[in-house]
Amino acid sequence: MPKISAKAHEMPASPIRKLVPFAEAAKKRGTKIYHLNIGQPDIETPATFLNAVKTADIKVLEYSHSAGFESYRKKLCNYYKSYNINIDQNDVIITCGGSEAIEIAMMTCFNAGDEVIIPEPFYANYNGFSKAADVVVKPIRSYIESGFALPAISEFEKLITPKTKGIMICNPGNPTGYLYTKAELEALKELVKKYDLFLLSDEVYREFCYDGKEYVSVMHLEGIENNVVLLDSISKRYSACGARIGAMISRNKEVMAGAMKFAQARLSPPSYGQIGAEAALETPQEYFDGVKKEYIARRDFVIEELNKIPGVFCPKPSGAFYCIARLPIDNADTFCQWLLESFTYNGQTVMFAPATGFYSTPGAGMNEVRIAYVLKKEDLNNAMVCLREALKIYPGKTN
Amino acid sequence: MPKISAKAHEMPASPIRKLVPFAEAAKKRGTKIYHLNIGQPDIETPATFLNAVKTADIKVLEYSHSAGFESYRKKLCNYYKSYNINIDQNDVIITCGGSEAIEIAMMTCFNAGDEVIIPEPFYANYNGFSKAADVVVKPIRSYIESGFALPAISEFEKLITPKTKGIMICNPGNPTGYLYTKAELEALKELVKKYDLFLLSDEVYREFCYDGKEYVSVMHLEGIENNVVLLDSISKRYSACGARIGAMISRNKEVMAGAMKFAQARLSPPSYGQIGAEAALETPQEYFDGVKKEYIARRDFVIEELNKIPGVFCPKPSGAFYCIARLPIDNADTFCQWLLESFTYNGQTVMFAPATGFYSTPGAGMNEVRIAYVLKKEDLNNAMVCLREALKIYPGKTN
Repeated sequence: MPKISAKAHEMPASPIRKLVPFAEAAKKRGTKIYHLNIGQPDIETPATFLNAVKTADIKVLEYSHSAGFESYRKKLCNYYKSYNINIDQNDVIITCGGSEAIEIAMMTCFNAGDEVIIPEPFYANYNGFSKAADVVVKPIRSYIESGFALPAISEFEKLITPKTKGIMICNPGNPTGYLYTKAELEALKELVKKYDLFLLSDEVYREFCYDGKEYVSVMHLEGIENNVVLLDSISKRYSACGARIGAMISRNKEVMAGAMKFAQARLSPPSYGQIGAEAALETPQEYFDGVKKEYIARRDFVIEELNKIPGVFCPKPSGAFYCIARLPIDNADTFCQWLLESFTYNGQTVMFAPATGFYSTPGAGMNEVRIAYVLKKEDLNNAMVCLREALKIYPGKTN
Repeated sequence: MPKISAKAHEMPASPIRKLVPFAEAAKKRGTKIYHLNIGQPDIETPATFLNAVKTADIKVLEYSHSAGFESYRKKLCNYYKSYNINIDQNDVIITCGGSEAIEIAMMTCFNAGDEVIIPEPFYANYNGFSKAADVVVKPIRSYIESGFALPAISEFEKLITPKTKGIMICNPGNPTGYLYTKAELEALKELVKKYDLFLLSDEVYREFCYDGKEYVSVMHLEGIENNVVLLDSISKRYSACGARIGAMISRNKEVMAGAMKFAQARLSPPSYGQIGAEAALETPQEYFDGVKKEYIARRDFVIEELNKIPGVFCPKPSGAFYCIARLPIDNADTFCQWLLESFTYNGQTVMFAPATGFYSTPGAGMNEVRIAYVLKKEDLNNAMVCLREALKIYPGKTN
């Protein structure tokens, strides 16, 4: 029997993969589980999107252009313009979700063995795409005490070697919800310029910035236009995760020409998703206002409830729909499994993502969980009750 | 300005990429071009598929399971059963087109530097996916004189080195239209067994087998169940290239577990495409009978017309909707460009894919073009007239 590749062996599994069988078993026992473990919102996809797909007049469902429909790319530039990001359609390749944008960007920018510095905790799948592209992730630690603010530039500089080829960030952050300030991004800019690095930025949560705080994109940074690659997705913006529509964007012509070769090899992004996404650009502002209001209410509720529980600490994030909470527990993996395997309260329990899966540094995040506040308030309330009750009796409680 | 990766530099561009600007310029001049250069059929997507998408009751367009909807995978097993391929839903990962199936299979089965033997001419994007996975393609030449039959096993054995890890075939073949016989596949089986290689087989044209010839899948070969990986797509079956739905299939549990990690990193395949593909499994047999009849008529017409033109030779393929014709020309790239740049007949011309792009061996296929007979007969007739007239005056004619 032939052996599979070392890469397939070493590919990290999803951080919640080990928990899935326990969740399934709990469901079989009749336990109601509140899923705060994944970023699948319950928000309805806008009618603009869904109706466009329903009414599309298709006779032959053809390949689209490898970079995506030209009409969509042109209109998408107007969308970015509303965020003061000025690009044209040749700076854009429509991808199969944000995932493919990350994958193509990594393969285009980095050679095997190149090092990329990523503030941790970070979106766990960056590990997978790095492994697929043979890129070495150099984590730089951010801390819950500062709300996961950008680490000091001097800490970045300590990690820079001749192999360092890029920095990757997520802003607003998954899993932290942290929104980088203009000052932080300007500091990153100087670093990127000094060492001539690529700066990849995953900004799929741009619609989710709260408290009047300013969203600053890497595309706003002047003087590093050829260093910057924006990674984007419509999954969260329109609650359309299943559409699999994202985008890779750069003003660096060489990057886009290289990326186009990968895009051409896989032929085209999904047509239906593009039809919906193009139409969704006309979604009325009220939709976004409503969604944002809902998420702010959810966040405020969850953060308040969390911090009321003895021994729990959770900084208030300014973006996305995640937060990381520090719990009075020995081991987040054990605790999350125990919640599914050995705990119920009124026939209910809650599923979190152990934060360990978002850190690269061994041992980091052992007493932290990521909470996606993607359910309605009543469900969030039940979930918080479960957590509070669970922490009263969890055998591995630390204080 | 940071440099892009060596991989991005070396990624092969599409074989017709160089021709695209010439096609665009010809269109601007008002020339009508018959596009026989790509496998985008003009056949209508079945109503089963299109209606299912139109009537899908979606409120939140969610991620699907990373391996694809379970309901779809289960029904898909019944589809395969009708081809005497017995698998269960755990042997299947639904992918974003056949492209992603190839990509994930290569990354799962092969290490960087591993060698894969592929009969040439082969689907040009195999080069791109091999480059992305750092796999070394070892082409083994098949010849137009034998209709591109499988090369002798002794020729394969000459190419086997300690680095040889697999063999990849396309059956029925793109770009050749050749349908491998049972004897050829049995011979391959013995080779695969002898050297314990992976056998990857792209069988996306299974619905297009003609003249009562038997379709033999690698999944039918007994005794190499753990070596075989099937790469599939619905793009041609339902004329639904834009759906971006394919599948990677293997009975090797280790392969599927490894592949699942890549599938999980990219989250899920497109939901709309899966909805259509699942419903399309109920497409009445008359649809396929009609499509097949149409392609047989097109093939018969094109092959007859081609072989009537002085100096042209084209074997009659038994599958897919491509053929490779040998023309009395000096250079297929030059000729195909000249057709777009310098030739018209009644304001019309024809676009082919130079066969050079389908060979890895330098200099091979210099007087061959791939013809995709994907247009209706009237258009094919006009295209053949153009070719005949063009060969009368082409300056690089060789006989």
